[in-house]
Parts: sequence; C-alpha cells; structure tokens
Amino acid sequence: MASEIELVAMRRAIDVARERGNCLPNPTVGCVVLDADGREVGIGATVRKGAHAEIEALAAAGERAKGGTAVVTLEPCRHIGNTGPCTEALIAAGVTRVVIAETDPHSEAGGGAEVLRAAGIEVETGVLADEAEPHNRAWRFAVVHGRPFVTWKYAATMDGLSAAPDGSSKWITGPDARRDVQTFRAQCDAIVAGTGAVLADDPRLTVRDAEDLPLPYDLQPLRVVVGETRIPNYYRVFDRVAPTLLIQSREPEEVLDKLTENGIKHAWLEGGPRLAGGFWKAGLIDRVIGYIAPSMLGSGRAALEGEAATLADLRPIEITDLSTVGHDIRIIGTPGAAPRETYI
Amino acid sequence: MASEIELVAMRRAIDVARERGNCLPNPTVGCVVLDADGREVGIGATVRKGAHAEIEALAAAGERAKGGTAVVTLEPCRHIGNTGPCTEALIAAGVTRVVIAETDPHSEAGGGAEVLRAAGIEVETGVLADEAEPHNRAWRFAVVHGRPFVTWKYAATMDGLSAAPDGSSKWITGPDARRDVQTFRAQCDAIVAGTGAVLADDPRLTVRDAEDLPLPYDLQPLRVVVGETRIPNYYRVFDRVAPTLLIQSREPEEVLDKLTENGIKHAWLEGGPRLAGGFWKAGLIDRVIGYIAPSMLGSGRAALEGEAATLADLRPIEITDLSTVGHDIRIIGTPGAAPRETYI
Repeated sequence: MASEIELVAMRRAIDVARERGNCLPNPTVGCVVLDADGREVGIGATVRKGAHAEIEALAAAGERAKGGTAVVTLEPCRHIGNTGPCTEALIAAGVTRVVIAETDPHSEAGGGAEVLRAAGIEVETGVLADEAEPHNRAWRFAVVHGRPFVTWKYAATMDGLSAAPDGSSKWITGPDARRDVQTFRAQCDAIVAGTGAVLADDPRLTVRDAEDLPLPYDLQPLRVVVGETRIPNYYRVFDRVAPTLLIQSREPEEVLDKLTENGIKHAWLEGGPRLAGGFWKAGLIDRVIGYIAPSMLGSGRAALEGEAATLADLRPIEITDLSTVGHDIRIIGTPGAAPRETYI
Repeated sequence: MASEIELVAMRRAIDVARERGNCLPNPTVGCVVLDADGREVGIGATVRKGAHAEIEALAAAGERAKGGTAVVTLEPCRHIGNTGPCTEALIAAGVTRVVIAETDPHSEAGGGAEVLRAAGIEVETGVLADEAEPHNRAWRFAVVHGRPFVTWKYAATMDGLSAAPDGSSKWITGPDARRDVQTFRAQCDAIVAGTGAVLADDPRLTVRDAEDLPLPYDLQPLRVVVGETRIPNYYRVFDRVAPTLLIQSREPEEVLDKLTENGIKHAWLEGGPRLAGGFWKAGLIDRVIGYIAPSMLGSGRAALEGEAATLADLRPIEITDLSTVGHDIRIIGTPGAAPRETYI
C-alpha cells in the first residue's frame, strides 16, 4: 500500500502535470522522485512535444534516485517516444519502487509496469487514479476507441437559437463566456468548424490568452474546416497563427478518420448546426458544453439541426456541471447512447 | 424602532402567511398580536376568500390585545373586504401600536396607517419589508400596473425545442420538474394556454398535489384558453375540476384586459410558442421559468415563436435563480425591457 509520503508525492505529481497543461497527442503526466529516505529529490511533467515527466524528474534527482521511489501519474511508457522508453530510464536510475496512478491503455506503450517488475522493481498501480484520470480523459478515450474524443461546444439563447434569421451569430454570449471557451479550447488539439460557419462569421479558431493574443503557433490546436464549400483565402482561418486542415466531407466518420490520421486525440467541435447535427445523430459527440445566454431571440437558427421526428427521438444528456459564467449559464454534459425511455 | 420581540413576531407573521399560501386576488398577509407585556396572544393569516389575518389574530387574542401591539406583514386595509376594514378592528381591539412590513399600494385599501395614526395608534412601517415583499410580488405588481403579473413557463430541450416535428410535446422534462411546476402553478390565479397547445396535448391546466390529485375547485386557478380555434367539449380543459374561461383573441393586451376584468392578479402562461411569442414581443412577460431537459431533439418546434430579424433584437433576461430539479435544469429570470447593447 502506498505510504502517506507517497500519497502526498502523487498529489504533487498530479498538480504539476495539470499546471503544465495540454500535452496532446501525449498524455498529461507528472512525476515525483523520492530518495531512499522518502525525501523529494526530483519533480517533472511531460512537455508538449518534449521530454516525458519521468525523464525530467530523474534528471533533477540524479544519483539520489538510487534506491528511491518514482511516483508517477501514468504507467511509464515502454515505447521509444521523444526521449526513449521511460521504463529503461527508471531501471537505469536504480529506483526500487514505482507508484503509479493511471494504467496506460495504449497497446504500444502499455505493459510498462510489467517491464519494471521483470527488472525487480516493486510496482503499485491505481494509487489516487480517480484524481489523476480526469486530466487524461480525452487522451484515454482516443487510445481506447481509436478516434478522437469529441467535445461539442455551442452557444445559444434560452430558446435554443444560435443565430438570428439574418445569420448574425457572433457573441450571443458575454465576454466571460468567451474567455471560458478559450480555456477549454486550450485543452484540445483540433478545433473543427463547418464551412458555413466559417463563411458566416470568419472565426479565428485559435486559442488566445486573457489579452486576446494567440498562443504560439506550436501550441495552437489544428484548425479543421469541414465541408465542400470553398473558403476564400483571405479568411482568417487561413492566417499564419495556427495550422489549418481542410476536410472535404461532412460525414462525421470520415472527418474523424482524417483527424485520427493526423494524430488528433481531442476534437473541439463548434460552429455549424448541420455539422453538429450530423455528429449528434451519429452518436459521435462525447461531451457537450453549452453556453446559454440569458436572453430570447424568438426566431433564428437552432444550435443543432437534426432529424428528430417524434419525442421518442429525444436524446438524453447526463449533466456533469452546471454553473454561471459571467451573465451566461454553462451546462456541461455527457450524451447518452440512446433515447431514454423513462423520459418519454 | 421595532424591538427585538417585534422582529421575532414579524418573522412569525411572515412564516404563517407563507404557510397559508396563495390568497389571490387578496394579498398574502400574516399577523401576530402581542399583549402589553410583549407576549404573543394571537396569530393569524389571511384565508383565501375568507377572513383577513388581523381579524383572525385579534379574535385569538380577545381582551389581551388591549394595550398591546399588532405586528402585520402588510398595511391593514381600510376598505370593506370579506371581513370589514381591518383598521376598525384594530382600533376597536384597543391595540396601541401597529408594526407593519409592506405598505399597501392599492389606492382603495391604502392609507390604513394614516387611519390608525388618526385614532392615536403608534404606527411603524417598513419593518422587515424586504423579507415580506417577495410573497406578494405578483399581487403588488397587479395593483400598481392595473394588469396581472405574467409568469411564462416553458419546458425545452437544451437545443430550445418544446415539441418534436410530429407535434408530440408532453413530458419533455422529468417527474420532479412536473411536480415543481405544480408548486408554482399553485401561486397563480389563472393558467393560460393557447388553443393550439390545448388541442395538441389535451392538458388539464389544474393544480394537483403530490399524488396528482387536483386541489378543490375553489382553490383552482382559473383556466384560460386563448385563441379562436374551437375546442371540442370533451377536452379535459372543460372538465369540472376547475373553472374555465375562453378568450377569443390572441392579442396579449386584450387577453390581459379580460383577465383584469376577471380579477386575475397572477397569470401563469404556458403552452403555445405563438402565444408566448406574442406576449414576449409585447414586453408583457414579467417572469420566465424555463425547465431545460438535459437532452437534444435536433428538430422540432421552438419554445417561443417570435420575429427577431437580427442579433440586435436579442432580449436580455436577468437570471434570478439557477438550479437543478431532478434531472432537469430550472432557470428563473426577469426579462429586460429592451435589447442589451453590451451583448451585441
């Protein structure tokens, strides 16, 4: 069983991983190395497109890792990544115990715990796994399902409208909600919009900071424009702030295949009720984040365009978070698999 | 200044009034009578279509009211109501001080405090008025504005739809939300629906208890069916559970005039996106209660049908309460007067 010192170290590792933020396509990982006496001698977190957490923590610990314990939020990889397999580095450093939160679902990288045990290292898994897992929810989903986790974001009035009849749709919600969207977008590695929404609103589809300045190119999610309508090259989605991928299809499965080919683990879907409706109908939306503006429009375009025929087609959503963001209401939920009989 | 004993008595009076509930078309009033030594010797609350609070409390106090204090949540009436003017009863009982929370906005009944003062009674007003007023919000509004306070209730999916394309619209929300609606309906004295909604869903438009049994006929709000389409007489809205009024107009002003003529103070508007849209457009909705089912329908009929042309027509709502009711989300808000410039 993990000691009190190891539990404290695990929470430190979870924190440092979370602070480092989005590492997609890699998972978010934190690592704390304790020496033989249980003192923290190294800490690290996986860097996006850089070193893994264990490598950083072991480098800081140096010789003091010998006979010590590595506390790591995710099962160490056994594959050759940016920095060589972490299992080898741990064995070479001479740690005698490894404490792990999440196990690795990835078939290529999985089995790290077995490799360590075969090398005579004591391994414990599942320690504070509940606290570590939420940070890698999308990554884990993508590894298990072989397709990106899809978050659909929409903004609508209380009567469910996302655009007025004249097509105007920008900024239904307030500035706080728009900033909130940026922090969520920053957790994804692709931002997907339909050609219709791009033509209507000329959105930037980038991640920006509190001053509305874009993150560096290397940290931007891939912008993905979906559909067959041609977008003139002076639209902002083609600027040099972030990379952009065009997918000439509106079939959700085809779009996800293309994203998977591009290594995308977490797609942020926004813009375009038809696009959202297609994903919705196909059951390919894994999380919904709705911003509800406290207002009514009366007529206009719905947030979602689908094909329900009767109330029996009602699709349930399990609400996981309900809060206010500035003047607006934010609802986060997980769509259910099928119409919920008890509701109809 | 009100003494600590009087403040405690006022809170008791507010509680007893709230427990007695809806007294429309009369206000909700509670009264506690203290004897000359500050002991509670009588308590009462206005009964719907029955005695006023002061009369009940004074009857309980009897001779012990002499030289005592009446603590009452609303300025005593000076008009001849069901039980004669309360001011006369207070004077006759020999109280020497009257402590009042809300003053009475009603021109006919107003001035009760002056009548008491002219009789040599010490009168203090505004004591805990903030705590007393919410219970008479609709009544006060109706007295001041000369028309009923209008609460619009709707239920919709997260994409703002209240009915599927085939017209099916019953029970989008769950049983907890439907029970919650009953407690709100019970605070009104009219339940208004359009002919379209009545024909589509054959609603009962009654107030029912936790066992789904209707309240007695005398305590039911007036059912009001609005529109020119004929409703066959076997529809449930014509059963004998509650009185029903037909108004052959869909003009909000005309409908409210008819309700005012019928003494209605708080109209509960539900059923019919066109009817709601008409009231909305006319600025005649004073409170919105939206039940948002955690689900998406994709296509169907909106909760509100209006005439917005552009985002500039966005009408703000000040959210006063946000909560979950069973699986559903409840949003209560107050519509703003005009499009909010800062939002567009």
